[in-house]
Amino acid sequence: MSGRKDDELPSVSHLGSEQTTYTFDYDPSLLETFENNHPNRDYVVKFNCPEFTTLCPKTGQPDFATIYIRYIPEVNMVESKSLKLYLFSFRNHGGFHEDAINTIMNDLIDLMDPRFIEVWGKFTPRGGISIDPYANYGRPETKYEQMAEQRLLYHDLYPEAVDNR
Amino acid sequence: MSGRKDDELPSVSHLGSEQTTYTFDYDPSLLETFENNHPNRDYVVKFNCPEFTTLCPKTGQPDFATIYIRYIPEVNMVESKSLKLYLFSFRNHGGFHEDAINTIMNDLIDLMDPRFIEVWGKFTPRGGISIDPYANYGRPETKYEQMAEQRLLYHDLYPEAVDNR
Amino acid sequence: MSGRKDDELPSVSHLGSEQTTYTFDYDPSLLETFENNHPNRDYVVKFNCPEFTTLCPKTGQPDFATIYIRYIPEVNMVESKSLKLYLFSFRNHGGFHEDAINTIMNDLIDLMDPRFIEVWGKFTPRGGISIDPYANYGRPETKYEQMAEQRLLYHDLYPEAVDNR
Amino acid sequence: MSGRKDDELPSVSHLGSEQTTYTFDYDPSLLETFENNHPNRDYVVKFNCPEFTTLCPKTGQPDFATIYIRYIPEVNMVESKSLKLYLFSFRNHGGFHEDAINTIMNDLIDLMDPRFIEVWGKFTPRGGISIDPYANYGRPETKYEQMAEQRLLYHDLYPEAVDNR
Amino acid sequence: MSGRKDDELPSVSHLGSEQTTYTFDYDPSLLETFENNHPNRDYVVKFNCPEFTTLCPKTGQPDFATIYIRYIPEVNMVESKSLKLYLFSFRNHGGFHEDAINTIMNDLIDLMDPRFIEVWGKFTPRGGISIDPYANYGRPETKYEQMAEQRLLYHDLYPEAVDNR
Amino acid sequence: MSGRKDDELPSVSHLGSEQTTYTFDYDPSLLETFENNHPNRDYVVKFNCPEFTTLCPKTGQPDFATIYIRYIPEVNMVESKSLKLYLFSFRNHGGFHEDAINTIMNDLIDLMDPRFIEVWGKFTPRGGISIDPYANYGRPETKYEQMAEQRLLYHDLYPEAVDNR
Amino acid sequence: MSGRKDDELPSVSHLGSEQTTYTFDYDPSLLETFENNHPNRDYVVKFNCPEFTTLCPKTGQPDFATIYIRYIPEVNMVESKSLKLYLFSFRNHGGFHEDAINTIMNDLIDLMDPRFIEVWGKFTPRGGISIDPYANYGRPETKYEQMAEQRLLYHDLYPEAVDNR
Amino acid sequence: MSGRKDDELPSVSHLGSEQTTYTFDYDPSLLETFENNHPNRDYVVKFNCPEFTTLCPKTGQPDFATIYIRYIPEVNMVESKSLKLYLFSFRNHGGFHEDAINTIMNDLIDLMDPRFIEVWGKFTPRGGISIDPYANYGRPETKYEQMAEQRLLYHDLYPEAVDNR
Amino acid sequence: MSGRKDDELPSVSHLGSEQTTYTFDYDPSLLETFENNHPNRDYVVKFNCPEFTTLCPKTGQPDFATIYIRYIPEVNMVESKSLKLYLFSFRNHGGFHEDAINTIMNDLIDLMDPRFIEVWGKFTPRGGISIDPYANYGRPETKYEQMAEQRLLYHDLYPEAVDNR
Amino acid sequence: MSGRKDDELPSVSHLGSEQTTYTFDYDPSLLETFENNHPNRDYVVKFNCPEFTTLCPKTGQPDFATIYIRYIPEVNMVESKSLKLYLFSFRNHGGFHEDAINTIMNDLIDLMDPRFIEVWGKFTPRGGISIDPYANYGRPETKYEQMAEQRLLYHDLYPEAVDNR
Ligand SMILES: [Ca+2]
Ligand SMILES: [Ca+2]
Ligand SMILES: [Ca+2]
Ligand SMILES: [Ca+2]
Ligand SMILES: [Ca+2]
Ligand SMILES: [Ca+2]
Ligand SMILES: [Ca+2]
Ligand SMILES: [Ca+2]
Ligand SMILES: [Ca+2]
Ligand SMILES: [Ca+2]
Ligand SMILES: [Ca+2]
Ligand SMILES: [Ca+2]
Ligand SMILES: [Ca+2]
Ligand SMILES: [Ca+2]
Ligand SMILES: [Ca+2]
Ligand SMILES: [Ca+2]
Repeated sequence: MSGRKDDELPSVSHLGSEQTTYTFDYDPSLLETFENNHPNRDYVVKFNCPEFTTLCPKTGQPDFATIYIRYIPEVNMVESKSLKLYLFSFRNHGGFHEDAINTIMNDLIDLMDPRFIEVWGKFTPRGGISIDPYANYGRPETKYEQMAEQRLLYHDLYPEAVDNR
Repeated sequence: MSGRKDDELPSVSHLGSEQTTYTFDYDPSLLETFENNHPNRDYVVKFNCPEFTTLCPKTGQPDFATIYIRYIPEVNMVESKSLKLYLFSFRNHGGFHEDAINTIMNDLIDLMDPRFIEVWGKFTPRGGISIDPYANYGRPETKYEQMAEQRLLYHDLYPEAVDNR
Repeated sequence: MSGRKDDELPSVSHLGSEQTTYTFDYDPSLLETFENNHPNRDYVVKFNCPEFTTLCPKTGQPDFATIYIRYIPEVNMVESKSLKLYLFSFRNHGGFHEDAINTIMNDLIDLMDPRFIEVWGKFTPRGGISIDPYANYGRPETKYEQMAEQRLLYHDLYPEAVDNR
Repeated sequence: MSGRKDDELPSVSHLGSEQTTYTFDYDPSLLETFENNHPNRDYVVKFNCPEFTTLCPKTGQPDFATIYIRYIPEVNMVESKSLKLYLFSFRNHGGFHEDAINTIMNDLIDLMDPRFIEVWGKFTPRGGISIDPYANYGRPETKYEQMAEQRLLYHDLYPEAVDNR
Repeated sequence: MSGRKDDELPSVSHLGSEQTTYTFDYDPSLLETFENNHPNRDYVVKFNCPEFTTLCPKTGQPDFATIYIRYIPEVNMVESKSLKLYLFSFRNHGGFHEDAINTIMNDLIDLMDPRFIEVWGKFTPRGGISIDPYANYGRPETKYEQMAEQRLLYHDLYPEAVDNR
Repeated sequence: MSGRKDDELPSVSHLGSEQTTYTFDYDPSLLETFENNHPNRDYVVKFNCPEFTTLCPKTGQPDFATIYIRYIPEVNMVESKSLKLYLFSFRNHGGFHEDAINTIMNDLIDLMDPRFIEVWGKFTPRGGISIDPYANYGRPETKYEQMAEQRLLYHDLYPEAVDNR
Repeated sequence: MSGRKDDELPSVSHLGSEQTTYTFDYDPSLLETFENNHPNRDYVVKFNCPEFTTLCPKTGQPDFATIYIRYIPEVNMVESKSLKLYLFSFRNHGGFHEDAINTIMNDLIDLMDPRFIEVWGKFTPRGGISIDPYANYGRPETKYEQMAEQRLLYHDLYPEAVDNR
Repeated sequence: MSGRKDDELPSVSHLGSEQTTYTFDYDPSLLETFENNHPNRDYVVKFNCPEFTTLCPKTGQPDFATIYIRYIPEVNMVESKSLKLYLFSFRNHGGFHEDAINTIMNDLIDLMDPRFIEVWGKFTPRGGISIDPYANYGRPETKYEQMAEQRLLYHDLYPEAVDNR
Repeated sequence: MSGRKDDELPSVSHLGSEQTTYTFDYDPSLLETFENNHPNRDYVVKFNCPEFTTLCPKTGQPDFATIYIRYIPEVNMVESKSLKLYLFSFRNHGGFHEDAINTIMNDLIDLMDPRFIEVWGKFTPRGGISIDPYANYGRPETKYEQMAEQRLLYHDLYPEAVDNR
Repeated sequence: MSGRKDDELPSVSHLGSEQTTYTFDYDPSLLETFENNHPNRDYVVKFNCPEFTTLCPKTGQPDFATIYIRYIPEVNMVESKSLKLYLFSFRNHGGFHEDAINTIMNDLIDLMDPRFIEVWGKFTPRGGISIDPYANYGRPETKYEQMAEQRLLYHDLYPEAVDNR
């Protein structure tokens, strides 16, 4: 089998590991990175995460969402199994939907120092209303900051139809 | 359970409350806010509200719509259960579709003083025709005013197919 | 214009009437009939009614549903505008979803004495769960009673996917 | 070009004709037939007709529907262009939805004397409610009569979702 | 019932009227207006009209389309029931698809003098090909003229899939 | 508000209660019932539950599913808020998908002694494969036992397409 | 590579052949078979063929359809590349839609002597109407003859929606 | 019938003609025009053509595509029946997909001298891969040239999902 | 965490194991079982497997399919990770589509001795045609044999639309 | 048959060749080109490739994706059969999803020296998360470099819904 060598992946501990322990208390230290092989190019990685669940801070009731994460890497790239473990760690965490999306974005900025990142959550309804928060970020004083502003400007201009069924 | 503390949520009276009373006469005082934890960042919150119903001002007949509300907060954020109660208060209210959308937006501007807001209603057909009003707002003399103009410019450029079934 | 003559429609008072008054308290007397022109044939009429709303008996909160009604007429057929007015009369009525569907079916049996009838409600979710009650009826001691039993047997064998969005 | 010869198609006057005149008053004499080449076999022909429009008998308002026609031929088969002209002839005709479907089926029985036939109309909503009548027929005292009864028994057991948009 | 008062609606004669007469010869005088309550704000009203039918000018054959109309009001707003009657008046009118869309837009400009308007027709196929004309307009010498040019520039950039079924 | 009276609902403690506590350890005692108002009729209640999550018994990893529950009541009917709490109690429970579906059905049989019940789970994929277990039950020695056998016979005959996206 | 050996495939000349010549005149001799490895079991093979085109016998205009073929083999199975060549040979052939479906079924019966076969064509519309013929066959005097009758009885009971777009 | 007069349509010979002959060898002379009634306005006409078929230049195998054509007229507009005949004339023509799209656009530029035009083909897969070529054109040295460049820049930014089924 | 104990799962070696080796040569010995906890009940387990790939026996070209497997267990149930490994082992295996489906079913019968099983493959097109083989099995001389016959009788009666995109 | 001549295709060796050998080790030398007939025009060719499979570099497990490739040619255009063979050569290759997309784009830049190119992969989920990498390129110091930057800026602004089923 050709391709990436194991010694290129020293910082990846979860993927293919013998034994994975799942943590259900919010823990950003679960996140791990590997190195970008194409740092001279601007390109995009997107994660579709339809299995996100957390707890309502006021009632303790479980909430459910699909989280979409999209970024342009510089040096560090988040490893997807560690991202899974990190998202699982919200399972017993309480927070408003709007806070969850900002927290996830902040943690990924701390981890990767990406050129650009955006996080979009689409939650299932409570009381007949569903909430979809969206946040983004571009490195200050770079063109990526303008990218973030542009994408916020045109965000969700053509929204999906939602009928609660 | 980690996350938001109760003492951060003093202005939220409906969510998780013992006893909710439902009002079916238009009442903007039902709206409540909580405080934005991320005021230094421009980000978006969207509400999908497919359970909106009001009355035709001329005939008294019930009308039905899905309302999409999307805004960028400054300090105050509308609490979703209070938004639900507010939208329920249109239940016995009469008004043209175009007025309802403007009223909802005006009330949310008064409540939150948001940086940007937009409200889109998609009504079910009467006489074979359905009406979808859309209004938006950006704070005067800021970049959000231009955002509102840009989003109006590109609004609904790629509309959904509607076949009345 | 050829077709049905006005004097064939004496019992129809709502359709095309000058002035319609809408009642929002449950009132089965709103239902009206016209006469079946094809009584020697078994055939089917189905109504799709996506604009049904009522109140939760415990909390007073509005509930929303699509109601599907399907029947085989004998002599009397329910006129569709009167059906609309009747369904509107549930607007301020409280009841469990399961009771609403049984009530609608009972009222239509009283009105039309149909050979066969079935009523299916598909409600929007509350607390992440949606409820879809279904009831049917065939005239006792006729083949339509067996039809009802058969259709219950195979009811919803291939259900729609529901994801609360 | 191989295939059917022109002299096999003597009764077909509309298809490929020089000049078609469109009649908008109900006229079953527009229907034409050609001969079934496979009379020893039971097989099915279905027509999908989404361009049907007629007038409400009470208000004169246009109504719109998709009509599905499906039959097993014996000797005569309805030619599709003549079927189009016939359906166009309802354009200025007034009638309840339930009558239109029975009329179309009766005319096609008179024309073709088919072994089996069924006609299903799906109309666009009026007052938030749409009506879908269905009728069928099998030759009396044959197995096709039982086919009709069976298909009525299982008709529309898994109905399409209708949300008026 | 709160909301719009009847004396605000003097120019609206069709809505809720006793007796509606339907005209099937092209008649722009059917169009009526009511007054915009929010003239200081740019906002949008869209009509979805899937029940449009007219006649081919060459063959007399009926044609069918869904018409989408979208505008920004100044003083006058088209009342939706009068729009329905106006669109019905094309029923026996002959014209190329491209002309119908321009005619509708011209009539609505004459009626309302809107800031901006666009009209899009999506016709069913003839000979395996379907035609979708689109026209728009912004008041000359205003920013709305540039809006029209921008929206034409990006019109239908991501077209729906069409497979004639 | 007309309809069900509070004193008809003595056994319902969760719905509209002041304070709900959420349990995430499997607890069938959370289930509550109310009384069937239509015991002389066979009719159906279906619950759509897209917010089900549990843990893999071997790896501890969260699993996600939509659960469909459908039953014919005799005397006792499961109250939907208590069903929600019960399904939430699987949140930290480990079990194979096949066992979860059997457990849910067994608990509901114990609770309600229904005439008929069926439970279908549709899980998200693990390793590229998703699992959909289905179980049903009819009261022994009654026609409902045959109903169960018939519905198993024809279960999922026309399965949904699954492509893991 | 394990699996079928070349010497098991002596009758297959088109698949993987050096040079394929395409014939556009109807030619059933193009069809080839290979031998069924599982003759003791009743199982089904279905072909989805969305690239079928032929000519109208009256006007010479091209017609387009998707053809669905489904059979239970005995000894001989039709090889799929030869089926493709055979269906291509209708390209310049004239015939009514109903005849094409019967011809295809007859040729496949002659070729394979299958236990059961059915052929369904779904054509694109002409003049706003589309035609979907269906024929089937079971070996006379066997249970497969009853299978054919049963499947005809329940054929297309829940038809797809067709709107010509 | 009001509308376009026959003497406005002198150049249209195919539409409604007595006898149409179909040519299956590439022939751009089949294209005909009629005159634009609204030359002072920039507006758009789009053709959806899902019944396009041609031959592979290397293997002779039939290829299938949907062609989308969209243009802004100046004086001449292509008549849709003549467009149909022209597209049919590719039936026995061999060419790479990329060439077909360029040829169609070149021929329509020669015919109409439009202000702007674009042609998009979506072909069915060969060997598991499908090809979608797109070309556009704006009159040199006009704003339409910039329109073409802009639309190329944003072309297919949000592509449809393709899974070969 | 409550639920299944590890000592109930002695025969499961792949799930959660330290190190998985993937085999790409057909190897039915990869399949493993665990014991059915509900042997007294007839219930169903279905696997959706959209990531199946094998090689054409004649050309060596990769083929792709979604495999649907559905069975009623007796004592042994196939463990899903071992099923994944088994299906991966077809990766470099050559065989006709029809043979693959029969092989998979035969291997699962040998492994589990189930009461009933069925296997359906839906392959992507080659040469414009796609093949969907289906086989099933019920234990000889039991009611499950009749179940298999019934399900074959009604198999794919309402097929999905396939358009090769 | 008119169209491209064989002597225009000297560099194309795979298409229509007698015997194709499939390589499952990564081999960019499989790629072949033919010459662009329209070099003076900027136009687009897109490939939809839903049958891409590779191996995880860490676990050896097969991964599956749909690859979308879109470019503007200068002189050389990639021949589609050679592209298929090239993509097949990833079958036994190990690599992170992000690397695969960059590798494919780099190889196509080396092969064709295109004006612009972009490559988008949409992978099936592992551990509940799916990854969609996207890269693009425009010739340095040309307007195509700006095109690449613009398309990255607006990439995936309106993402598809993903629910892992
Ligand atoms: Ca849904
Ligand atoms: Ca929905
Ligand atoms: Ca619709
Ligand atoms: Ca959904
Ligand atoms: Ca709908
Ligand atoms: Ca379609
Ligand atoms: Ca899917
Ligand atoms: Ca999906
Ligand atoms: Ca539709
Ligand atoms: Ca379509
Ligand atoms: Ca359609
Ligand atoms: Ca798909
Ligand atoms: Ca597809
Ligand atoms: Ca498809
Ligand atoms: Ca498609
Ligand atoms: Ca899905």
